[in-house]
Amino acid sequence: MSLIVQKFGGSSVANADRIRNVAGIVADTYSAGNQVVVVVSAQGDTTDELIAKANEINPKASKREMDMLLSTGEQISIALLAMALEAMGYSVKSLTGWQAGFSTDSNHGGARIRNINTDRLENELSKNNIVIVAGFQGLNRYDDITTLGRGGSDTSAVALAAALHADKCQIFTDVDGVYTADPRLVKNAVKLDEISYDEMLELASLGAQVLHNRSVEMAKKYGVDLEVLSSLERKPGTKVKEVVDVEKLLIRGVTKDDKSARVSVLGIPDVPGTAFRLFTLLGKYKVNVDVILQSLGQDHTQEISFTVPMDQLQTTIQVLNDAKETLGFTEVAYNDQISKVSIVGAGMATNPGVASKMFGALYEANINIHMISTSEIKISVLIDRKDSDKAVIAIHNAFYE
Amino acid sequence: MSLIVQKFGGSSVANADRIRNVAGIVADTYSAGNQVVVVVSAQGDTTDELIAKANEINPKASKREMDMLLSTGEQISIALLAMALEAMGYSVKSLTGWQAGFSTDSNHGGARIRNINTDRLENELSKNNIVIVAGFQGLNRYDDITTLGRGGSDTSAVALAAALHADKCQIFTDVDGVYTADPRLVKNAVKLDEISYDEMLELASLGAQVLHNRSVEMAKKYGVDLEVLSSLERKPGTKVKEVVDVEKLLIRGVTKDDKSARVSVLGIPDVPGTAFRLFTLLGKYKVNVDVILQSLGQDHTQEISFTVPMDQLQTTIQVLNDAKETLGFTEVAYNDQISKVSIVGAGMATNPGVASKMFGALYEANINIHMISTSEIKISVLIDRKDSDKAVIAIHNAFYE
Repeated sequence: MSLIVQKFGGSSVANADRIRNVAGIVADTYSAGNQVVVVVSAQGDTTDELIAKANEINPKASKREMDMLLSTGEQISIALLAMALEAMGYSVKSLTGWQAGFSTDSNHGGARIRNINTDRLENELSKNNIVIVAGFQGLNRYDDITTLGRGGSDTSAVALAAALHADKCQIFTDVDGVYTADPRLVKNAVKLDEISYDEMLELASLGAQVLHNRSVEMAKKYGVDLEVLSSLERKPGTKVKEVVDVEKLLIRGVTKDDKSARVSVLGIPDVPGTAFRLFTLLGKYKVNVDVILQSLGQDHTQEISFTVPMDQLQTTIQVLNDAKETLGFTEVAYNDQISKVSIVGAGMATNPGVASKMFGALYEANINIHMISTSEIKISVLIDRKDSDKAVIAIHNAFYE
Repeated sequence: MSLIVQKFGGSSVANADRIRNVAGIVADTYSAGNQVVVVVSAQGDTTDELIAKANEINPKASKREMDMLLSTGEQISIALLAMALEAMGYSVKSLTGWQAGFSTDSNHGGARIRNINTDRLENELSKNNIVIVAGFQGLNRYDDITTLGRGGSDTSAVALAAALHADKCQIFTDVDGVYTADPRLVKNAVKLDEISYDEMLELASLGAQVLHNRSVEMAKKYGVDLEVLSSLERKPGTKVKEVVDVEKLLIRGVTKDDKSARVSVLGIPDVPGTAFRLFTLLGKYKVNVDVILQSLGQDHTQEISFTVPMDQLQTTIQVLNDAKETLGFTEVAYNDQISKVSIVGAGMATNPGVASKMFGALYEANINIHMISTSEIKISVLIDRKDSDKAVIAIHNAFYE
């Protein structure tokens, strides 16, 4: 008998038919002789509807009260899914985040899970109940309801799988696995049978939008066997685990990120410590800096370029301009019409041909590269946003045809 | 400084404007130097919408899961009301039923409050917070969410007022108090300044639909000063308390109940104990029997007539027919086209003219009386349903003009 944690997102439980479909998957898993713990998100647009209600009354509502409001979304889902399983004759209990033992810190709206007291859960499982748990939520030390922020249900599921020492954690979504590129963009994109945590982390942070990074980080930390699969089709998905056969495929995927902007700080005095002070400052304002390039400018000055998420661009410019005198640079420039296109694969570090193949594909497609960044398992390039789709297709073709 | 519990029903918080209106009332009460605990119901039709969602998936859902589902309604209301008060600059905390310390029995869907642990509430009040509590809900000993059933929010408010030794409990509704008759029916109905618990109990059970009986019973038991008033107009309502000036008004109100049916059991053997066995049997099936009339029938048999709520009529007929041989009667007849019209007033017991005045008014309106039932503070008559409105107006005119 295995213990399996299954997580279903908002679109998988969006209406009565979808809920019955999910109940069918859960029931089959249970009937095959497994213990099943199910984590669900709020139905379809529920969270957005609740946010709209709040905004109508108070656009600056406290995060505590937003959590009180938003946590009802998952509570509705768990009750409805439990009812669907009851209708099929199964013994089932739904549990809110706090009933399932989720303790978090007090960072309302983006709380971190501190620990999970699994007593209640294990008690329900021992009575052969299917257990449905509200994702995305917990309780802080003051007994106030908290939410984990966007993507929190994935994290809830992985954390539960870790705490219960589950045999696996299945994340059901509206795609049937992780692909070598966005299948909507690249027609011959290939579904991966398996991928390593590290590769998945790079793909997730690069915009692959299948699994949230927090959940993958947690899965890696606790060695939880993850699987990403479709809630609409009954077929194997993509397994995410520690070690995968790196020989099989040289690169795991090609992704693009259209939501970054490039910032360039010009005329920085060529003295030690300037870059350190600059990024410390941005860190203080929680700006996520990526793809950093430092180069010698004119007249013994330096130039530092980096990317930031589009929605942090305004803050970044503001913070830098306010510190212009302290840091001693002459100008801040930015380009918000760039994209980051990346290839990810554990095999590429030991294979020098990968980078040249990527650059060659871009050259042949007549796409200009602004900046390059590499890591052990990733190569990213900054290009004009208008070229990003073309770039993904060109690179994917170079590696897969 | 007084401690005031204020309760607002679903229509009072149905939309953003209504919620802001309620926030205004609460804010004024707090700003006048009072501690304020607010109990709210689910918004407008939320509960019905949630029930519809459940029915679509499982019309026979367990009551435990229904409670899990329905309790989200009040949780949404408390968060939104808290946000409205935050927007006005007030320090406020919303609390679910369990956070506010409501312990109940395990009778899901109709749970009874066992006790309220007021630690958290008192802690919030001591920090000068306005506290918003989700009505209608609590937690059983297994940490499962329960609901108190329809009208539960009134009960929550009164129970809180009792537990906190509040100075008063104000129930805000869409009417501005308790009237001597339904103002929609009787144009010259008079708003009562005050009414006793017992009178209110009779009026409530007779269909006055202002306060639920459970809440009035609890208010009486713990001596909570109640006030029924409008959430839409700022003016005094009706006070409900132990003793009121009985001399002021002879009768407190005229009400009708169009939701009862009369059942007649004919040809009962004229031996002792038959009535006892008959009503014990109905009690076992939780049939609420009212207005009982026992009379001698033909051939040494008895006839027992009584009223039951319309929605228990089927059950009643069924149960009686199944016991026909045991009880030894010959026939069950019923009339589902009757109404019960009553006058209520603590003064009437010592004033013999009241009954004759009531019967006279009906006689002059040419309305036939089927049955009569009297208590210390109430006289009820059964009449044809088609005459019920006419009867209320005629009786009201007799006493108030």
